Amino acid sequence: MPYLKNTWYMFGHSHEVTTEAFRNRTIADETLLVYRKTDNTLAAIHDLCPHRFVPLHKGRQIGDIIQCGYHGLEFGADGRCVKSPVAGSPISKSACVRSYPVVERDTIIWVWVGEPEKADENLLPDYSFLTEPNRRNVGGYLHTKANYQLSADNLLDLTHVQFVHESLQASEAFERAEIRVEQDEDSVTSYLTFPNGRPSVVFQNFLDPEVPLDLVFEMRWNLPSCLRLKVTGNPPGEPENQQFETMSAHIVSPETEQTSHYFYINSRTTELDNPEKDEALRAWQEQGFIQEDKPMLEAQQRYIGDRDLMSLNPLGLKADAAAVRARRMLAERIAEEGQG
Amino acid sequence: MPYLKNTWYMFGHSHEVTTEAFRNRTIADETLLVYRKTDNTLAAIHDLCPHRFVPLHKGRQIGDIIQCGYHGLEFGADGRCVKSPVAGSPISKSACVRSYPVVERDTIIWVWVGEPEKADENLLPDYSFLTEPNRRNVGGYLHTKANYQLSADNLLDLTHVQFVHESLQASEAFERAEIRVEQDEDSVTSYLTFPNGRPSVVFQNFLDPEVPLDLVFEMRWNLPSCLRLKVTGNPPGEPENQQFETMSAHIVSPETEQTSHYFYINSRTTELDNPEKDEALRAWQEQGFIQEDKPMLEAQQRYIGDRDLMSLNPLGLKADAAAVRARRMLAERIAEEGQG
Amino acid sequence: MPYLKNTWYMFGHSHEVTTEAFRNRTIADETLLVYRKTDNTLAAIHDLCPHRFVPLHKGRQIGDIIQCGYHGLEFGADGRCVKSPVAGSPISKSACVRSYPVVERDTIIWVWVGEPEKADENLLPDYSFLTEPNRRNVGGYLHTKANYQLSADNLLDLTHVQFVHESLQASEAFERAEIRVEQDEDSVTSYLTFPNGRPSVVFQNFLDPEVPLDLVFEMRWNLPSCLRLKVTGNPPGEPENQQFETMSAHIVSPETEQTSHYFYINSRTTELDNPEKDEALRAWQEQGFIQEDKPMLEAQQRYIGDRDLMSLNPLGLKADAAAVRARRMLAERIAEEGQG
Repeated sequence: MPYLKNTWYMFGHSHEVTTEAFRNRTIADETLLVYRKTDNTLAAIHDLCPHRFVPLHKGRQIGDIIQCGYHGLEFGADGRCVKSPVAGSPISKSACVRSYPVVERDTIIWVWVGEPEKADENLLPDYSFLTEPNRRNVGGYLHTKANYQLSADNLLDLTHVQFVHESLQASEAFERAEIRVEQDEDSVTSYLTFPNGRPSVVFQNFLDPEVPLDLVFEMRWNLPSCLRLKVTGNPPGEPENQQFETMSAHIVSPETEQTSHYFYINSRTTELDNPEKDEALRAWQEQGFIQEDKPMLEAQQRYIGDRDLMSLNPLGLKADAAAVRARRMLAERIAEEGQG
Repeated sequence: MPYLKNTWYMFGHSHEVTTEAFRNRTIADETLLVYRKTDNTLAAIHDLCPHRFVPLHKGRQIGDIIQCGYHGLEFGADGRCVKSPVAGSPISKSACVRSYPVVERDTIIWVWVGEPEKADENLLPDYSFLTEPNRRNVGGYLHTKANYQLSADNLLDLTHVQFVHESLQASEAFERAEIRVEQDEDSVTSYLTFPNGRPSVVFQNFLDPEVPLDLVFEMRWNLPSCLRLKVTGNPPGEPENQQFETMSAHIVSPETEQTSHYFYINSRTTELDNPEKDEALRAWQEQGFIQEDKPMLEAQQRYIGDRDLMSLNPLGLKADAAAVRARRMLAERIAEEGQG
Repeated sequence: MPYLKNTWYMFGHSHEVTTEAFRNRTIADETLLVYRKTDNTLAAIHDLCPHRFVPLHKGRQIGDIIQCGYHGLEFGADGRCVKSPVAGSPISKSACVRSYPVVERDTIIWVWVGEPEKADENLLPDYSFLTEPNRRNVGGYLHTKANYQLSADNLLDLTHVQFVHESLQASEAFERAEIRVEQDEDSVTSYLTFPNGRPSVVFQNFLDPEVPLDLVFEMRWNLPSCLRLKVTGNPPGEPENQQFETMSAHIVSPETEQTSHYFYINSRTTELDNPEKDEALRAWQEQGFIQEDKPMLEAQQRYIGDRDLMSLNPLGLKADAAAVRARRMLAERIAEEGQG
């Protein structure tokens, strides 16, 4: 399936690109080089020298330009060649690489691989919670040898935590779980509620394991594959009496048809100045993903290969509703774009 | 070339599947999960959850059912889904995985990947020697990145031991070797005789290296790729006066077109209670295969690729007779099946 | 693109093939086995037994014949089968492997994979400097996962040393560099001159870093991909007053479409009996290639894949002139051969 082109894809975390270190990543089959200019703003150019086709990330940044590491051609942030290697070689006007709209917001670097004139910051999904006061974020990156939509499916059907993340997250209320799905123009939100259940192990470091509560997992999906999880807990039947709330971002960008980038940002309102807490949360997120989710996703991908999941007639379950709607919404947008 | 479908393939050794540990293997491109139920009988089902296409071997066995490790669907030995993950999700009648006939006989687990109604235990090749009294068996498993028929060729032309396994098995009678082939409806048997020769190194731990004998290697091949080796020795010209006999099973199952499973079972009538002998025989079988046969087979496969050996017009030698007949018999059965 | 067939390809260095150790390499998709007969001359045969298609290099050399390691067929230097494994198997006249013209000259082993009757030693490129008196050669071999023409491009445009090999070879005269290209029927020669510049780091172990000189890199390319580099230095404007000259061979043979063999021979006229100098030169050549050139070439290849570089419309620079002429000459010869 083709990619949605006129959309923002997460390229990386703000802290991943500095004036000392650029970064290359492939997004939706486009090889990109993103670097931070001396004024601290970002530039995104095609990571490929048009002379002999080596990646520009093998070169180096000199001020605001990128110099190819093979024969020294230099390119500016707009992609134009500003210097050619040997005196006497005229710089052709056609000597340029493609440049891409790039935006930095809420600690996230977004790139637009579609038509540049359509790039619209109003289309950015809302991750403003990340920059609210009195929060501490821990962000990370993990690579997956699986299509990005398989990762989105995984996140949109959190019943999987009962099995995939059983040791820390299985709930004794699982059999009573309630699922509700909402949808608007650009997003799908899944609510998974474990009513009147004892907290699973992962919550027992701040909740009494013997006191039942209503636990709600609210997973919001935005086009193309940007998710936000809010988990809230309250005494059974007292939603107004919220005891805790945790927020996190889970954003998946396609690298190729069969590989993807998974970015997570865990955001907390307690122990803000405790670096050990940072590391504990990072370890929890990464080990859970690497040891438990990723092997599932990659096993799916090996089976599915270059086919589309839905073309294989998967058995449908109630818990798939959100993932199926998100897939459908994305497929429709891609189809519209193809006709447009 | 397609596989013969209506036939028994060795899936594994009996000891490889217990009530505590199931096993997954791909046989003729079918991914199978074989598990042992609480009554000790076996079940074989497709190793793929029809919901989101993860292998069921990533889940777990609970009594007589298999629970998918992703979202918890449960399947019985007949392949029918008996439980769906979240209360309220009805179990569709179509929610099932394929199940396969599976038989356990003579310490071997056999599976049938063709039409289930044609599965007939009378078609099992005879390995009853393995369960005769006063024998001790040592069985193992080795994987090969080569088509299963190349392994069968290797076993059916034992003149290769003179070169491939020279240090232990080369015979000074090699130049006088005699080859004879017999054939019936389902089997081909090759007799390779080294007349009046001194025993090769491997026999010298129980034979006098200076006393010549007639040595006969009888290799029986059964459809699809099941071999049994009997080696006998006797004073020159006195076949009735047999000095020793050793038996072994060598069974090759296709995994994919270009990879295969090799199972061996060395069966002896001496030193039955000597575990050091077990380990010595295992080491001899496995080192010989891994260091000497497997590199040859895999080099052949790399050259042959997705072509058929016979389509490459191999130079024919007298010693190929048994392998060529076996290939022809198998090809005829596959062709018949395609028409049937 | 097809290979030029009626041409000499470097197979290896003379010292790589001894009567004790043959060598197999794939040249232009032909798997070759080259061995040294007891009279010290060379033989080159197809590295593939026609019986069961194992490579002959898995066998062994016995005198002037090669014995297959699987079932013992024996082949002579002309490729004819001279012995078949089991007594009674007649040797078919058609039992032979292809043999190839092979020549050893100037410490280089050359093979001809085209029509044998066209093999002509007069077509060998001139590397006679290697066997002039009072020289000491250090030769080596490096494998590259890149098409051989990408290596030739690299060598024919030495402006790359300014960037790829910056730490040792960047010249402060780079901006003033002059490029000149000559061409005759079978060769292209590029002259890159750094006028009136201080020697780069690599020359400072025998040149005064403060004294400017004219430095000329003369790179001669012969069909199909055989290069010779001569570097000379003289006081500015005094070419007749040559201060030093170094010579080296850089020969690239295609292995497959996307991989190649790079052979270098560094030849010096000083410190002839100093083995430490040998090792220093070897280390310099190999580290420079492995750490600096090879990653560039392999990154190009990954992007180019199975396409032809020129079909991708590379941006043309003045410094490409020699490489472009060499590619054109080779393409023309290949086209002529296809029609012939």
